[in-house]
Amino acid sequence: MVDATMPVKIIPLGGLEQIGMNITAIEYDKTIIVVDCGLSFPDDDMLGIDLVIPDISYLIENKERVKGLVITHGHEDHIGSIPYIEKQLKMPIYATRLTMGLIDYKLEEHGILNEVKREVVSYGQTIKLGQIRVEFIRTNHSIADSAALAIHTPAGTIVHTGDFKVDYTPVFGGVIDLQRFAELGKEGVLALMADSTNATRSGFTPSERTVGKTFDHIFDENRDHRMIIATFASNVDRVQQIINSAYKYKRKVIVQGRSMENVISIASELGYLTIPEHTLIEIDEAKNYTDEQLVYITTGSQGENMAVLSRIAASIHNKISIKPGDVVIFSSSPIPGNEKAVYRVINELEQKGAKVIYHDAHVSGHACQEELKLIYALTKPKYAIPVHGEYRHLKRHAELAAEMGIPKENIRIVKCGDVLAVSDEAMEVIGHVQAQGVLVDGLGVGDVGNIVLRDRQHLSENGLIVVVLTLEHSTNQLLAGPDIISRGFVYVREAESLLEDCRLVVEETLDECLSRSTADWSRIKSRVRDELGEFLWKRTKRSPMILPIISEV
Amino acid sequence: MVDATMPVKIIPLGGLEQIGMNITAIEYDKTIIVVDCGLSFPDDDMLGIDLVIPDISYLIENKERVKGLVITHGHEDHIGSIPYIEKQLKMPIYATRLTMGLIDYKLEEHGILNEVKREVVSYGQTIKLGQIRVEFIRTNHSIADSAALAIHTPAGTIVHTGDFKVDYTPVFGGVIDLQRFAELGKEGVLALMADSTNATRSGFTPSERTVGKTFDHIFDENRDHRMIIATFASNVDRVQQIINSAYKYKRKVIVQGRSMENVISIASELGYLTIPEHTLIEIDEAKNYTDEQLVYITTGSQGENMAVLSRIAASIHNKISIKPGDVVIFSSSPIPGNEKAVYRVINELEQKGAKVIYHDAHVSGHACQEELKLIYALTKPKYAIPVHGEYRHLKRHAELAAEMGIPKENIRIVKCGDVLAVSDEAMEVIGHVQAQGVLVDGLGVGDVGNIVLRDRQHLSENGLIVVVLTLEHSTNQLLAGPDIISRGFVYVREAESLLEDCRLVVEETLDECLSRSTADWSRIKSRVRDELGEFLWKRTKRSPMILPIISEV
Repeated sequence: MVDATMPVKIIPLGGLEQIGMNITAIEYDKTIIVVDCGLSFPDDDMLGIDLVIPDISYLIENKERVKGLVITHGHEDHIGSIPYIEKQLKMPIYATRLTMGLIDYKLEEHGILNEVKREVVSYGQTIKLGQIRVEFIRTNHSIADSAALAIHTPAGTIVHTGDFKVDYTPVFGGVIDLQRFAELGKEGVLALMADSTNATRSGFTPSERTVGKTFDHIFDENRDHRMIIATFASNVDRVQQIINSAYKYKRKVIVQGRSMENVISIASELGYLTIPEHTLIEIDEAKNYTDEQLVYITTGSQGENMAVLSRIAASIHNKISIKPGDVVIFSSSPIPGNEKAVYRVINELEQKGAKVIYHDAHVSGHACQEELKLIYALTKPKYAIPVHGEYRHLKRHAELAAEMGIPKENIRIVKCGDVLAVSDEAMEVIGHVQAQGVLVDGLGVGDVGNIVLRDRQHLSENGLIVVVLTLEHSTNQLLAGPDIISRGFVYVREAESLLEDCRLVVEETLDECLSRSTADWSRIKSRVRDELGEFLWKRTKRSPMILPIISEV
Repeated sequence: MVDATMPVKIIPLGGLEQIGMNITAIEYDKTIIVVDCGLSFPDDDMLGIDLVIPDISYLIENKERVKGLVITHGHEDHIGSIPYIEKQLKMPIYATRLTMGLIDYKLEEHGILNEVKREVVSYGQTIKLGQIRVEFIRTNHSIADSAALAIHTPAGTIVHTGDFKVDYTPVFGGVIDLQRFAELGKEGVLALMADSTNATRSGFTPSERTVGKTFDHIFDENRDHRMIIATFASNVDRVQQIINSAYKYKRKVIVQGRSMENVISIASELGYLTIPEHTLIEIDEAKNYTDEQLVYITTGSQGENMAVLSRIAASIHNKISIKPGDVVIFSSSPIPGNEKAVYRVINELEQKGAKVIYHDAHVSGHACQEELKLIYALTKPKYAIPVHGEYRHLKRHAELAAEMGIPKENIRIVKCGDVLAVSDEAMEVIGHVQAQGVLVDGLGVGDVGNIVLRDRQHLSENGLIVVVLTLEHSTNQLLAGPDIISRGFVYVREAESLLEDCRLVVEETLDECLSRSTADWSRIKSRVRDELGEFLWKRTKRSPMILPIISEV
C-alpha cells in the first residue's frame, strides 16, 4: 500500500553523538533498508573491549521487512560491523566496487562470504528494495568509490551524503556529482542527512591533490635519506600519491602493516591503484637498495600500539630500525584522543635520530562549512537531519542549516534509537528503539556489560585482595586461613607487615562472627569486606577490591 | 675552594622528555642547589596512580651539600612535589611572594609549614647559597611573580628561564626584564636553559591582555545570558581579566572549585588580584540576581572528571545546573591527552542547551620561536641546554639554538639523571644518577612499581578467575573445591556453563596432578594456570588473570 501521507521513518542505530559505528534504518511501510554498518572503537572507560558494534534488536524483530543493506563507502566506521551483523541477519548488501571488495575481504575472514548475497552498484544506478529505491551518487572522500544515497520513498526523497567532501581535482575518479544533487533539489528533497564531521570548521577542505604536491616537495628536500610514511590504510588515493612521488624520485616502495597490505592488494586488483612495474618491492629486497632509494608506507599514523610505525619507534619491529637521518612523515592528523600516543611515537622516533614531519602532509576527507552550504544550496531540502558527529558537530551543523534558510522547526538533531517520522506535513520523534552499542571482547559479543566493566575499573585502579578461609561444615570451625593474597595492590615483598596486619584484622572479624551461634556466610563475607576495607582506607587511602572466599570441608 | 676550571654540574632529575615534574640540581664543588620541585600527572599506563614525584635519592645521598631549593614560579609542575620532598630533605626554600604564598598553602596542608625554612625573594635580589649565587629576574608567564634565574657559579653563569613568555603589556606587574638578560649576556653567560614548551611554534605568543579584549567582546555579545568561564586555577591574571569584564558589564562573580578558591584567596590577600567591592559573591547569594547579572569562574577547563565544570556538565553539581541559553567559555586549550575529555564535557553542555565557546579565549604562557630567539640574542650563551618539554620540543629548540649561531657541539639535549659537566672548556655528560619518577597512590609513595602496574593492566583488560581448592595435609586428598570465582571477566549469570566447563578443566588437571605420588603445590598451581588459560583462550580469545589458591587442612 502506497500512501503519500504515510511518513518515512528514520531510525539511527548508531553514529550520532559519537564518531564511528554509523548505521541507520530507513523504514517505509513494509520496507526497511539499512544504511551502513560500522563499528566504533572503545571509549577509555570500556576497559579490555576490542570494539563496539551496533545493537540491531530492532532489525531482528522486523527481519521479514528488512530488504537490504546499502553502504556509502569502505571505512571501518561504515562497514566494520558487517560480519557480526550478517551472522545474525542475512541482508543482501549493495555497494560500489571498491567498497564491496573491502566488504568481501571481511566476510571471507569471518568465513561467511558465501552466505551473504552481494551486489555491486555503479554511480547513477538505482536499486529497488521493496517500496524504497536507492540511487548511488558519486562523491569525494578519503577513500575512492564513496557514494551519497538518494533514498526515494513514497513519502519523499531523503538524500544521505555519507562521508563526503567536494574535491574539484580528485586523485582518482570524478568530481562529486553536483549536477545530480542539483537535479534532486529541483525535483524536491524531503530531508538531507549530511556529514557533520567538519561542521565546526570554516572554509573549504583542500583537494587531496594538494597533498601530492607536498609529497613531491618533501621527496625533493630529502633526497639523501630513507623515508617512512605512515597513513590510513584505507586512503588509497594517499597511497597512490606516495607511489607517484616515489616513482618520480626513483624510489622503491615497501608496504608494511597487515591492513595496509590488504587494502593495497584489493585496490590494485580492482584497478583503483596504479603501480608502475618494479616500484613495489618486498621488504627482504630492501638490502639491494641504498637508503635514498627506498620509501616505506606503513600503518600506525594514529600511534596505535601494535602498528608498524609504533613498533619501529619502540625498536621492536623485526625488520626496520630507525637510523639517524631517516625522515618519517605522518600523513594524517591525530583523531581526538590519540594525540598523546602520536606524540609519544614522534618523541621516540626523534630520540633515535629521525626527522619527523607531522604537519602539512594531510588534508581532511570531510566537508567544511562552505561545502555543506553548497550541498544545502543544491538540494534545498525541506528538513535537515545532521548526521556523523559528536553533539558539538551536529549542533554547529544545525546552526549552519538555519543560516541556509531552513526553518528551525525543520532541523532536528536526533539521538541513537530515536524513531523520526518524516512526511511533507511534519517531522517528529514518535518513538524509541534499543540502540546502545554492543561490546566485543575477544570472541565474546555482548557478554561484557556494566558490571564487568565496573569490576575491571575497580581492579585497574586499586587491585585486589583475596581472603581465603576454610570452615568445617557442621561446626563452623576455622580449619585453615585466613590467607591473604593480593594482586595489583602493593608490592608484596615490601608490604609484608601491611598484609600481616590485614590478616589480623580478618582474624578479629572472624572471631567475632564465629563466636555467634548462627554464623551466616554472607554475613561473614560482608563483615570481612567492610572491616578490611575500612582498615586499608585508613592505612593507605586506597580501596582494593576485597574478595572473601570461604571453602567448606 | 674556588677553581675556575672546575666544571659546574647540571643534573636534571625530571622535566625532560616529559611535560611536568620539573626539578634540576645544580652542583659546584661543595654546593648543590635545586631548581624547582614539580609533580607530573600519571601516564595512561600508570593505572590507579594519583601523581608522580621526582626520585631525589641523589640529593639525599648528598644532603649535607644541598643548600637550598629555588623556585621559578607557582605552577604544580614546579612546586607540586615540595611537600613530599621536604618531608625527606629539609631544604630552605627561596621564591617570589606569590609563589611562596602557594607553597606555604601546600606545606600547611601537609602539616609541615613550620618545619621548613622559607625566604621570600624579590626580583633583582641575589641570594647566596654556599658557592653559588642565585639572582631572580622578572619574567612573564601565565602566573604572576614568575622568575628566571641567573645562577652564578665560579665556573660561570647559568641562565635558567623557568617557564616564560615575553609580554610587553602584561596584566599584572612589569615586562620581562630584557635589560638584565642583555646585561648578563654582556657579562658572559656560560649556559642558557630555556623553556621549550612552544619551541615548535613559529612567531610570538600574544599578550595576555588580548584575552581581556576577547572577554569584553564575549560579555558584550552575551548580555542576556548567564555565563560560566572555566580556566586554570593558577592563572591569576586570567581571573583578574574576567573580574574586570564582569565589573565593566555589571555582573557579580561567583568562584567555584577548591583550587580556584584557594588561589584567588591567596592572590588577593597578597595583592595580586584587585577585586572591586561587592563584585565577588557567594554561590548562595546567586538567587538574588538574574542570570544576566552573574558570571561563574570554575575549575574543569581540562575536562577533569571531578572538577566543577565537568560535574555541571554531567548534571551532578549540587548547586549549578545548565539552562538553555547559558554561555560556557573554555578559557584554556586542551593539554595533549585531555582532548577527548574536554570534548565530552563540551558535548554534554551543548546537549543541555548551553552555547559553548572553546576557541579564542586563551593565549599560551610560553615563548614561541621568536621570543626564544630574542633571549638567545640577548644572553648570547656559550652553551644551550633546552629544558621543559617532550623530546620533539627539545629537539626543535636545539635546532633553533643552532640557527642562532651556537655551534652544534655546544648544544645538548640531556636526559633525566644525566650529569652534565659544564665549563668554559667543554660540556659533557660525565655520569648518571637515579632519576625515575616515584609513583604516589593514596598515602603510598613508591610502593607501587612495575609488577603492581602490570597486574593492574592485566586485571583491567581481562579480569580475574580465582580457583580455590582445599587439600588434606598429609594425603593431598581434595577436600573441597575446585571453586571458580570470577571478577571483571564475564557476566556470571549468563556464563554459568562456561564457568562450569572451567571447573571441569581444573578437575581433570587436578586428577592428573594428584594421582602422582609427589604432588608439588607450585606444580599444581602452574598446571592449573596453564590448562585453564589455554582452555579460556581457545573458547573466548581472552586471557584473564588466573589465581589458583590452595588451602591445606
